[in-house]
Amino acid sequence: MPTHAALINIDTPAALIERPRMQRNIARMQARMNALGVRFRPHAKTAKCTAVTRAQVAAGAQGITVSTLKEAEQFFADGVTDILYAVGMVPHKLPQALALRRKGCDLKIITDNAAAATAIAEFGRAQGEVFDVLIEVDTDGHRSGIKPDEAALITVGRALHDGGMRLAGVMTHAGGSYDLNTPDALTALAEQERAGCVRAAERLRAEGLPCAVVSVGSTPTALSARSLEGVTEVRAGVYVFFDLVMHNVGVCSTDDIALSVLTTVIGHQADKGWAIVDAGWMAMSRDRGTQKQPRDYGYGQVCDVNGNVLDGYVLTGANQEHGILSRADGQLQSDVDIAQRFPVGMQLRILPNHACATGAQYGEYHAVEDGVVKETWARFGGW
Amino acid sequence: MPTHAALINIDTPAALIERPRMQRNIARMQARMNALGVRFRPHAKTAKCTAVTRAQVAAGAQGITVSTLKEAEQFFADGVTDILYAVGMVPHKLPQALALRRKGCDLKIITDNAAAATAIAEFGRAQGEVFDVLIEVDTDGHRSGIKPDEAALITVGRALHDGGMRLAGVMTHAGGSYDLNTPDALTALAEQERAGCVRAAERLRAEGLPCAVVSVGSTPTALSARSLEGVTEVRAGVYVFFDLVMHNVGVCSTDDIALSVLTTVIGHQADKGWAIVDAGWMAMSRDRGTQKQPRDYGYGQVCDVNGNVLDGYVLTGANQEHGILSRADGQLQSDVDIAQRFPVGMQLRILPNHACATGAQYGEYHAVEDGVVKETWARFGGW
Repeated sequence: MPTHAALINIDTPAALIERPRMQRNIARMQARMNALGVRFRPHAKTAKCTAVTRAQVAAGAQGITVSTLKEAEQFFADGVTDILYAVGMVPHKLPQALALRRKGCDLKIITDNAAAATAIAEFGRAQGEVFDVLIEVDTDGHRSGIKPDEAALITVGRALHDGGMRLAGVMTHAGGSYDLNTPDALTALAEQERAGCVRAAERLRAEGLPCAVVSVGSTPTALSARSLEGVTEVRAGVYVFFDLVMHNVGVCSTDDIALSVLTTVIGHQADKGWAIVDAGWMAMSRDRGTQKQPRDYGYGQVCDVNGNVLDGYVLTGANQEHGILSRADGQLQSDVDIAQRFPVGMQLRILPNHACATGAQYGEYHAVEDGVVKETWARFGGW
Repeated sequence: MPTHAALINIDTPAALIERPRMQRNIARMQARMNALGVRFRPHAKTAKCTAVTRAQVAAGAQGITVSTLKEAEQFFADGVTDILYAVGMVPHKLPQALALRRKGCDLKIITDNAAAATAIAEFGRAQGEVFDVLIEVDTDGHRSGIKPDEAALITVGRALHDGGMRLAGVMTHAGGSYDLNTPDALTALAEQERAGCVRAAERLRAEGLPCAVVSVGSTPTALSARSLEGVTEVRAGVYVFFDLVMHNVGVCSTDDIALSVLTTVIGHQADKGWAIVDAGWMAMSRDRGTQKQPRDYGYGQVCDVNGNVLDGYVLTGANQEHGILSRADGQLQSDVDIAQRFPVGMQLRILPNHACATGAQYGEYHAVEDGVVKETWARFGGW
């Protein structure tokens, strides 16, 4: 793994992290959470990289969030003990969760239904384990969770508490924020997320059930909330790198995007205004998250090798190992000097639509500063 | 890695290969190529798995195609020597290609432009290596290559031949076939692919340049060609697993699809007719290749755990580790018994839109027969 190597010596395609941008993103979010008076629990699913999580913890994060038990195992092995597994628990994953807790991991799990809550309680009692369980609350209708005023909230709370588990609190994720793009709409959804989760906590407490933790978050709502009254912790993931989807949502500039893909021009179709690069969808992911947003970046925004945006040029198409670079305003516009502008062998960087998806295509990141690879960081995947 | 395990003991999400289907797909394609009198060189990029490639070679494949030099290295290490790297060569990858050849790998490379051809010849002469090079021909306008009648074909041929390299032949890939869906259109494109590539070969030979290999192929055209006169070899990749895109193109039935994702139901939103499963886009990939086809399967077709299609149910949405299972005809249709139909903990299989993209999300495949995991096969990724 090359370190202190100039980018010209890096095989392409490769995933680059512009380290000063990442550090700035981490500092910005942590400062905001400190100012709002809440704990911050970053979501490690974006990077799946111990070096990134260490930087978040060093900046003040308290515990992490994960999307798979493999992430929990990997980060626990790296010394993180306070871990929230933020995907609904199912019976057959309980032995794996138990094994982590038996090793000393303070693993918290979640559920949004009585069937799973009952299974958790039965398994816990059978194994002599008191699981810490949060109830998932649905505050924006986009995915999982119990609505704050549903009867099921109390049923599930009772199944856990009366079943001998530790009802640790409530959590929600307003992922619907990814579909917005105005400050007012984001602020309103952040308040809806806060209010709904606090409401759920109050209902549980009114029934005499414990509910210490009130956990909310998504990158857009975390950066848009005006008040977090009643909230004890916030979670966010993609803010660490940002991406073009977040840029369209309106919570970062392209200069904040810390993850990019280093690629090389391999050919042209000059009559179509195309340069062909060696970053196809395997390098960028198939994520087309900007397709329905105000500005469609195709498979990514083209930058020069130093990361300066080349406005108007995007990856308009992608095969497995081929990207088609052309003007964003259509393949029909001839750009006859394309082969002179982007000669064979030229390196470029591509900003991704969705950092979580693009990062997942790589086994390592090159941490870059001043155009030089300072360190190479392993990234894990799978389940 | 569990073997001879029932599926109920497999952690989800997981990639399953229904081995009898894969063997049937391999036999079908090989028999067709034998009948048409051409060599068959499967594309290993779909599976990136030595067990799969071995099965193809055992059935009669002669050499393989790869999309990255890492694939070349991995399959060469497993004993395959005749390898075509079917992505345009660029100067900085030449040392890696040279290293493979020096170890005894019969690696063939390709180019479609004079800049790269000149760089290959200069590097080859400087290193005392005669590279085998094919010229990439564009027969359908979908990506890279020189059109059969362009002057550049001869320029590039001369740069290679007169530059001391071995001009091995011409190759093309009619990837535009993925956009078709009638037998007549597929047959016509297969003929266009054949005729264009043969035409390019004839032009080179008329100039006194060697051109022994005439290599064509994509899964749809390989399965639709009526004549391959003048062609010496065919390449195809996704046929080994097939997928929903290929089903929509019309070259396989859903019963031929050998790759699926094993998943578990983790919750519901009964008022919306949703079941939530633990296969999100990380498990399925972000590929939405059926979106523009006659039938849109969302993020995948839902099957029971034995692989029987549950007609009308697809993954209509996907977050990183959450899939939303509902009726394909819209999230608004309430399916109030969804929680009884798909209870928490139930296992299902999901057929993928695009096998190459879904496979790439996994480090291993479970080879299944009669509902039992017979073997677990490693899959590699990266570059």
